[in-house]
Amino acid sequence: MKKTTKTTKEGLRREIREAVRRVRKENPMAPSITNTVTINLVANAQLAVGGSAAMVYLADEGEAMAALGGAMYINMGTMLPVYAETLPRTVKVLAEQEKPWIVDPVGIGVGGLRASLLLGFRADKPTIIRGNASEIIALAELWELDTGKKSGGVRGVDSTDAVESARTAAVSLARHTGGAVAVSGPVDLVTDGKSVALVEGGSKYLPMITGAGCSLGGVAAVYACVASPFVAALTATAIYDFAGAKAEKDANGPASFQVAFLDALYQATPEDVGAQHFSLETVGK
Amino acid sequence: MKKTTKTTKEGLRREIREAVRRVRKENPMAPSITNTVTINLVANAQLAVGGSAAMVYLADEGEAMAALGGAMYINMGTMLPVYAETLPRTVKVLAEQEKPWIVDPVGIGVGGLRASLLLGFRADKPTIIRGNASEIIALAELWELDTGKKSGGVRGVDSTDAVESARTAAVSLARHTGGAVAVSGPVDLVTDGKSVALVEGGSKYLPMITGAGCSLGGVAAVYACVASPFVAALTATAIYDFAGAKAEKDANGPASFQVAFLDALYQATPEDVGAQHFSLETVGK
Amino acid sequence: MKKTTKTTKEGLRREIREAVRRVRKENPMAPSITNTVTINLVANAQLAVGGSAAMVYLADEGEAMAALGGAMYINMGTMLPVYAETLPRTVKVLAEQEKPWIVDPVGIGVGGLRASLLLGFRADKPTIIRGNASEIIALAELWELDTGKKSGGVRGVDSTDAVESARTAAVSLARHTGGAVAVSGPVDLVTDGKSVALVEGGSKYLPMITGAGCSLGGVAAVYACVASPFVAALTATAIYDFAGAKAEKDANGPASFQVAFLDALYQATPEDVGAQHFSLETVGK
Repeated sequence: MKKTTKTTKEGLRREIREAVRRVRKENPMAPSITNTVTINLVANAQLAVGGSAAMVYLADEGEAMAALGGAMYINMGTMLPVYAETLPRTVKVLAEQEKPWIVDPVGIGVGGLRASLLLGFRADKPTIIRGNASEIIALAELWELDTGKKSGGVRGVDSTDAVESARTAAVSLARHTGGAVAVSGPVDLVTDGKSVALVEGGSKYLPMITGAGCSLGGVAAVYACVASPFVAALTATAIYDFAGAKAEKDANGPASFQVAFLDALYQATPEDVGAQHFSLETVGK
Repeated sequence: MKKTTKTTKEGLRREIREAVRRVRKENPMAPSITNTVTINLVANAQLAVGGSAAMVYLADEGEAMAALGGAMYINMGTMLPVYAETLPRTVKVLAEQEKPWIVDPVGIGVGGLRASLLLGFRADKPTIIRGNASEIIALAELWELDTGKKSGGVRGVDSTDAVESARTAAVSLARHTGGAVAVSGPVDLVTDGKSVALVEGGSKYLPMITGAGCSLGGVAAVYACVASPFVAALTATAIYDFAGAKAEKDANGPASFQVAFLDALYQATPEDVGAQHFSLETVGK
Repeated sequence: MKKTTKTTKEGLRREIREAVRRVRKENPMAPSITNTVTINLVANAQLAVGGSAAMVYLADEGEAMAALGGAMYINMGTMLPVYAETLPRTVKVLAEQEKPWIVDPVGIGVGGLRASLLLGFRADKPTIIRGNASEIIALAELWELDTGKKSGGVRGVDSTDAVESARTAAVSLARHTGGAVAVSGPVDLVTDGKSVALVEGGSKYLPMITGAGCSLGGVAAVYACVASPFVAALTATAIYDFAGAKAEKDANGPASFQVAFLDALYQATPEDVGAQHFSLETVGK
């Protein structure tokens, strides 16, 4: 007599544990097209949770990896000229093969190519969108979705908005794509447009290492190989909050934190991640 | 009755402490166009001292970041084709907006694009030039400035000249640009063309981790957001010498050193950095 | 009365110790054209064993570094458009100057540019080929050499074949090039087409850090500056197996392992590496 588990916390916890377990067992490959600053951390975080990594730049390689991988991670942090061709062709294969894909709109607001590609993703509907509050609000604005407020202007890679301020934008984005949105901050927010989970934990050091958010996106792609978009985004967020809190205890600063954090990702059990504290709310129409 | 502090050690110490303090408080962004080998370390070092990082490759993004940042770091380590367009356009915006910018002529002597861009920087006059002795001498030669000796030939990324041998070249470069020059070595040399500071400290491990010099340049860019070129270069050098000496005590080799070094950058107080030993000399005409 | 040492274990051990010693003393430069995911680890591993590193992308810089370096490392992990020009021109200089060069066919089977370049290397005959079993078999197939079995299809970056299954392919490749082949796996295999060495050691963590194999290739290039292809490949493999086993004792997970591993590379003495256990067999015709 298994009940629908979609909107209960206990059901979600079960699915989180299952996602962690399956990734450790099945070693799914989630290829990336990602920025050169944090590309190494993305790969190592994906390996630490039990996944496989492969990074490419060229258009035909993006297409090949879209076909080979279980899900794909696209991070817009450092645009290269070849991306004008690579990203649309890769996303086309992802759509044709109905593969989950994660977009991280790092640097939204800076430069013409990034803006043009992100605008194109409005119709492509990425499965999971991950960003900090500023980026999520900026993407909802770019796509002319409801953000619950009026704002504008260029935004960099830093997080200037509190997560809560991005709630309406996140819900709008998730309803538009039919997938999930994960917003990183002191408290993390994950939504599928119907429910909103607020996840606690993490560490003061996470914003002090470059690539904490990028690698969370890569890890979400790994979980998206074996779980629904909402559960994948929630599992990635929960394992980061668990590992961050654990690693902070052993850290003397951001670098020893990063080492302890990756070790903690590697050591985290399904039970550890499934037990991470979060609240769950249903979103009104 | 505040006296001019320009050429007294106590005045410089005060300005160093103030630079460290202001960066921790104001979190200034110093974007980079930098090599792919050490890009992650540059970003993490900038974050560790309290700054913000953002790395780009495309021309319009270079222009945007020049306008957004408080200062910019340009490292020539790994040239890409797009740099032929990106670097001149970025430097033009930096000049128009009178933003400080730091050049690290890594690999000077190798390849045509790097030589052509570095030659162009002669007229653009970067605010701070950072390199090892070989690179500083080679740049002074490329710009046909006085190096105090006759030499020539191709130079790689290693440091084959002692810092002292680059003193004349460094002073010549600083006088030409009107900014500052920082030369890294067993003893570090920083000059604004009028004064020369020799800073002690550091670690035998610093030359054994790739990117020690690159990340010092990125950190100098962070301090250049809040301090004069000379003080910014001196503060970056002093915090590196402080953190290097501190980290060596906890290290078993270059990798544990790098972790301890970034942690030490993060932990360093204004007083720690301001107390770092250096000598100060006035340069003759 | 020095005897030929080519096929005796004791002779090889002597040459391994000598390679480790000479690199620590002579600090040879082995430049790389390598992927952006693990480029930092490649450089730091090369420094840790006592070599020098320099990474480039542009064609004329590849040519310059081929001429400047003692040996060169070419890793196919992340293809960029400029590689279509850079790799052939670099390899041409390496051939003209009879410099050793190492190819790591990461990602073989993915994309047209990589396939085309790797096919061209058939005639260029790289001095050392390094890969996991899947990659070595795939390269032998691409070059239409004997692999001892029938197989085919696309292969990613993961190691799906046991090292032993790549023995015939490795021997075929070594006989074709006249150089050496190193196959990484739970037991490592190194061959010059006449002898096969099987090296034990390493760590369960090595496959869990991205770039373990890439950096081994870079380290092999460093040793190729001072030793024969077979001894260089064997020395790199042996120091990795030594350092891996040593580092695992201090590790809590893959990230603390990587730190301890690089430290162990740095600490390893000629005697440590020369004493690493391996078996040696003569290959039949």
